Amino acid sequence: MNLRPLGDRLVVKPIEEAEQTSTGIFLPETAKEKPQQGKVVAAGPGARKENGERIPLDVKVDDTVLYAKYAGTSIKLQGEEYLILKESDVLAIVENGNK
Amino acid sequence: MNLRPLGDRLVVKPIEEAEQTSTGIFLPETAKEKPQQGKVVAAGPGARKENGERIPLDVKVDDTVLYAKYAGTSIKLQGEEYLILKESDVLAIVENGNK
Amino acid sequence: MNLRPLGDRLVVKPIEEAEQTSTGIFLPETAKEKPQQGKVVAAGPGARKENGERIPLDVKVDDTVLYAKYAGTSIKLQGEEYLILKESDVLAIVENGNK
Amino acid sequence: MNLRPLGDRLVVKPIEEAEQTSTGIFLPETAKEKPQQGKVVAAGPGARKENGERIPLDVKVDDTVLYAKYAGTSIKLQGEEYLILKESDVLAIVENGNK
Amino acid sequence: MNLRPLGDRLVVKPIEEAEQTSTGIFLPETAKEKPQQGKVVAAGPGARKENGERIPLDVKVDDTVLYAKYAGTSIKLQGEEYLILKESDVLAIVENGNK
Amino acid sequence: MNLRPLGDRLVVKPIEEAEQTSTGIFLPETAKEKPQQGKVVAAGPGARKENGERIPLDVKVDDTVLYAKYAGTSIKLQGEEYLILKESDVLAIVENGNK
Amino acid sequence: MNLRPLGDRLVVKPIEEAEQTSTGIFLPETAKEKPQQGKVVAAGPGARKENGERIPLDVKVDDTVLYAKYAGTSIKLQGEEYLILKESDVLAIVENGNK
Repeated sequence: MNLRPLGDRLVVKPIEEAEQTSTGIFLPETAKEKPQQGKVVAAGPGARKENGERIPLDVKVDDTVLYAKYAGTSIKLQGEEYLILKESDVLAIVENGNK
Repeated sequence: MNLRPLGDRLVVKPIEEAEQTSTGIFLPETAKEKPQQGKVVAAGPGARKENGERIPLDVKVDDTVLYAKYAGTSIKLQGEEYLILKESDVLAIVENGNK
Repeated sequence: MNLRPLGDRLVVKPIEEAEQTSTGIFLPETAKEKPQQGKVVAAGPGARKENGERIPLDVKVDDTVLYAKYAGTSIKLQGEEYLILKESDVLAIVENGNK
Repeated sequence: MNLRPLGDRLVVKPIEEAEQTSTGIFLPETAKEKPQQGKVVAAGPGARKENGERIPLDVKVDDTVLYAKYAGTSIKLQGEEYLILKESDVLAIVENGNK
Repeated sequence: MNLRPLGDRLVVKPIEEAEQTSTGIFLPETAKEKPQQGKVVAAGPGARKENGERIPLDVKVDDTVLYAKYAGTSIKLQGEEYLILKESDVLAIVENGNK
Repeated sequence: MNLRPLGDRLVVKPIEEAEQTSTGIFLPETAKEKPQQGKVVAAGPGARKENGERIPLDVKVDDTVLYAKYAGTSIKLQGEEYLILKESDVLAIVENGNK
Repeated sequence: MNLRPLGDRLVVKPIEEAEQTSTGIFLPETAKEKPQQGKVVAAGPGARKENGERIPLDVKVDDTVLYAKYAGTSIKLQGEEYLILKESDVLAIVENGNK
């Protein structure tokens, strides 16, 4: 994929939660929550400050990130779902997250 | 076409997705999604900073850009549909996008 | 007409689209779209910066401008309809537009 | 009248449009539009900048001004209707306006 | 009364309009408009600027002020109604107003 | 109680108005107004300015303050109701208020 | 858990109030209020100032914090509920709070 996000934006591939909950019960499709984790596949150069310099991003490609439900803009490219988030929509980095 | 956008605005020609989905099924007209890609046909000189200088745009004419559904203002000139976006409405540049 | 707009405002005379669409079909009155082009008949001196200086406008009298539907304030003076827009409501200048 | 407006405010006496329209037809009371012109009867000293200095107003007492419908706050003093507007609500000065 | 307003706030005692209108007709209680004039009974020290200094108020104790309907916060202390306004809610000072 | 408010926040204990109105009529529980006075039991260190310094608060512990109905966040700790207000929600200090 | 919050964000584990109220009455599940206290399990590096420096947080890991009902974003990781708050959503630190 060749998406180059602008400013402080990230392209994120959502991670589906495993089909099994922590209590070991399989849930039918409709009961699954919308994913809130994703892997960063592309990152912008950072937003510009007033003087023209960039503010570097804290998030890097391959980070697994946590984001609020319904954050960002969901896009579909070549049959795959991606999410374009602003770095400020990222709540936290999951350090031993799924890759 | 002779549109000269002001400030950080872009004139974009939306790209219709191919009438065939990734699964090879042809969709009737009403099931097609509103296009979210477009080609930049004109770009403004950049927004002015407080001191009067321009902030140069990151997007150039002929770039293929991705934008959120319903972003910008849709206009019709000489029978063709265009979209006028602010650069901040552009989510990402599609590097090997359709031209 | 002797309207002197304040700050970064423009007085614009809307241009009715020709009664004939690009497909050559005449439309009855009610199907016509609200005009989105207009000719600038007066322009303000520009908004003031914090230090009191004016930021000069990019739009000049006699320019044909494109603006979003329903932008600005519509006024009627001596039986004629005008629109008072802020320059930031102007999307683009139409370079070979109707005069 | 002895109203001293604060900051960048103006006291304006609305001007009723003549009871006759441009086509020469007299309109009954209920069909008249809310006035959008008025004469400035008092003007504030200007808003303060951060450093305490005043930004002088562009509008002066006796100017005839144009303002958006429903702008400002309508007050009644001694049986007369006035409007208190911020200068930023003034769209334009009518140079040969009614006095 | 011992109310000490903070920042750019004023304590105002609303002035009931006389029970007689300008046309000499007495109105029953329910037809009276909510008062829009009041006398300033206490004034704050002024809002702080970023550097910690105060911006002095333009309104002083004993001024009669005009304010928009429903501006501010209405409080009742010792059976009396007062209004706490920010100075920016004051439209104008009535120079020969009722005291 | 050991609540340490952050920034420009105050912990306030609301003061119920006496069950008797100024006209000497006892009101049943449901007719009482929500209290609008309270005593400050803890005060934050002040909001930070851009350069990292604190802006000192004007309100101190033990002050009786007046605040708008429904301002702030109501919390219950150890069976008691408290209100956490920002100093900017405080309208005035009641100088001979109830302690 | 390995969540690394960004900027001025905190990861908080909500503390359920004891099932017994201060009056000694046990409440059924549905009458319990949503918890408003929590223990900080991770804290971000602080928001960036315009010049790129971080503003240090006032809240530290292991603090017990009070926050408004419904503040922040609730997430579920490995079967546990957490809340991601901005430091500005924290009302106060509970000094002898539950740990």
